[in-house]
Amino acid sequence: MVDSGSDEALFASLRDRLFTAVAGDVLDRMGHRRQFLPQAIGPLRADMKIVGRAMTVLEADVFDDVSVTGRGPLSGRPFGLMMEALDDLAPGEVYIATGSSLTYALWGELMSTRAIHLKAAGAVLDGYVRDAAAIEALGFPTFCRGIYAQDQGPRGKVVDYRTPIEIQGVRIHPGDLLFGDREGVLVIPAGAEREAVGRALEKIATENQVAAAIRQGMSAKEAFETFGVL
Amino acid sequence: MVDSGSDEALFASLRDRLFTAVAGDVLDRMGHRRQFLPQAIGPLRADMKIVGRAMTVLEADVFDDVSVTGRGPLSGRPFGLMMEALDDLAPGEVYIATGSSLTYALWGELMSTRAIHLKAAGAVLDGYVRDAAAIEALGFPTFCRGIYAQDQGPRGKVVDYRTPIEIQGVRIHPGDLLFGDREGVLVIPAGAEREAVGRALEKIATENQVAAAIRQGMSAKEAFETFGVL
Amino acid sequence: MVDSGSDEALFASLRDRLFTAVAGDVLDRMGHRRQFLPQAIGPLRADMKIVGRAMTVLEADVFDDVSVTGRGPLSGRPFGLMMEALDDLAPGEVYIATGSSLTYALWGELMSTRAIHLKAAGAVLDGYVRDAAAIEALGFPTFCRGIYAQDQGPRGKVVDYRTPIEIQGVRIHPGDLLFGDREGVLVIPAGAEREAVGRALEKIATENQVAAAIRQGMSAKEAFETFGVL
Repeated sequence: MVDSGSDEALFASLRDRLFTAVAGDVLDRMGHRRQFLPQAIGPLRADMKIVGRAMTVLEADVFDDVSVTGRGPLSGRPFGLMMEALDDLAPGEVYIATGSSLTYALWGELMSTRAIHLKAAGAVLDGYVRDAAAIEALGFPTFCRGIYAQDQGPRGKVVDYRTPIEIQGVRIHPGDLLFGDREGVLVIPAGAEREAVGRALEKIATENQVAAAIRQGMSAKEAFETFGVL
Repeated sequence: MVDSGSDEALFASLRDRLFTAVAGDVLDRMGHRRQFLPQAIGPLRADMKIVGRAMTVLEADVFDDVSVTGRGPLSGRPFGLMMEALDDLAPGEVYIATGSSLTYALWGELMSTRAIHLKAAGAVLDGYVRDAAAIEALGFPTFCRGIYAQDQGPRGKVVDYRTPIEIQGVRIHPGDLLFGDREGVLVIPAGAEREAVGRALEKIATENQVAAAIRQGMSAKEAFETFGVL
Repeated sequence: MVDSGSDEALFASLRDRLFTAVAGDVLDRMGHRRQFLPQAIGPLRADMKIVGRAMTVLEADVFDDVSVTGRGPLSGRPFGLMMEALDDLAPGEVYIATGSSLTYALWGELMSTRAIHLKAAGAVLDGYVRDAAAIEALGFPTFCRGIYAQDQGPRGKVVDYRTPIEIQGVRIHPGDLLFGDREGVLVIPAGAEREAVGRALEKIATENQVAAAIRQGMSAKEAFETFGVL
């Protein structure tokens, strides 16, 4: 279903010609109505966009970086599988993590530096990030719930990766196409990618016609009846 | 009670000489203590101000844009009365909407374009907006709870307009004067308009005196005893 | 425990060479794990930093600025002890307040002007501030939960100051060292100040080494095993 040659063209259309509003609209029409991550997840800087395939990461809260008495397989490993997950990023992939409480940072400068080296496309955190100024300077597309320096070390671990995850009811499979800008992050279902992008490009043309008609005084009611869009 | 000639002078005082903090203070003194909309409703861009009369809009969540089986009067109409409400905006009016859940956008670029054509004064949404960059470029004063591209189409409808509404206990009647800046949105009760603006202009003069005295070393205690203001 | 000569050197290290992420990390290692104020408390402007000693302020909600029938010791005093608390600020101190609901502003322009005159180091509010543009122009380091013009007058009073306070489980004693930047506000426990700053300066050197190694292609796993840091 996915070959890297056509991924490039697809990614370029999303990055250079589309935005999440129009892509979400066509997904709605195609019957995919739970594709936007929650509103609180936004870009670190308003001009950041993200296009790439999900490398899913599952976090869990812990209460010590190393537990001598704990019987779990990760009790003795600070950060759990975080280093393995990070090192596993492939070009064009997006590190997307959920599962933790909102009390510490899930991403920072050194992780961004490693991800850039691996040619990853960005990071989406259902939580906070730290080292915001450094990440902005690196220009690495990072979407999150906000900025907070408190460290993950004694508070959270990566317990799995490349496993299906959910963020407030939106399911993300490894390899799903993620598309984010200032107005939200969209999970584009695997089977819907080409059709969604094609229809979104068409819808933009229609919207430009509607805008021109409205600027010339057409009423909202007439515009909606004429173009089916507002 | 309201004639457009004096509205112009009133609007100019609010827009050019006043800010919400001082206007809210005098409303407090006049016994009007529930006039600020919730803190989370702010301008799309920090420098936006809004002054105008409320054109109230009531939203409701739905779960399909068209319901074939629904028996309600708006079951068959996508967006309900949204086009009618938008087209009904008069010069100097503010489209102010509440009633929906926080899961989709209540306002966007095409609506702003139509509102500008009708010489409306702005929009206040108890919810999200989309097309933020386009609205900022248009310079249309828009206040909201944040930015989110998810479409209203299959999720919400306008069910009434020019009807009294409430936002977290603050009641807004059609025609109420709205005054918003970076620090909040104030609903100025109809009978209190002239007195509130007059007293606010006076209070600014006093505050400037207090600031000068404090810069010269007057204590907060003495300043409050002397001027009755801090 | 605290002498002003060494305070100056300590403050300079924090202000000019450190940031909250690295300081919080070393406090974690030293066993102090509840030192960050909640994520929602941030600087009014992203470039503001705060370094100073806590002048703690306890707020409480009221429902009138003056209550004729109330039997409490502050029933007749608008703002309670706010003027006294403000006037009591010593050079290098930070006005830090909690206890109120999130419905009004705890700080504004005139308070900032007075605090600057007293050479205070900043303000940290577990609540909102008003007159944001004026405070930004004054450049007074102010950390808060957001901007909201609604006045404290008929809604809140200062009921005590120089008393221990807590903000979401983080305890702050009068005189505690506060360190804040864009990524959070840290309460540095009195006994841990010198060691924390010393260790934080060392950790920065290590982090720079790790960043260089990762830029040259070292894996996250190897970097963490080599340096113990990521």
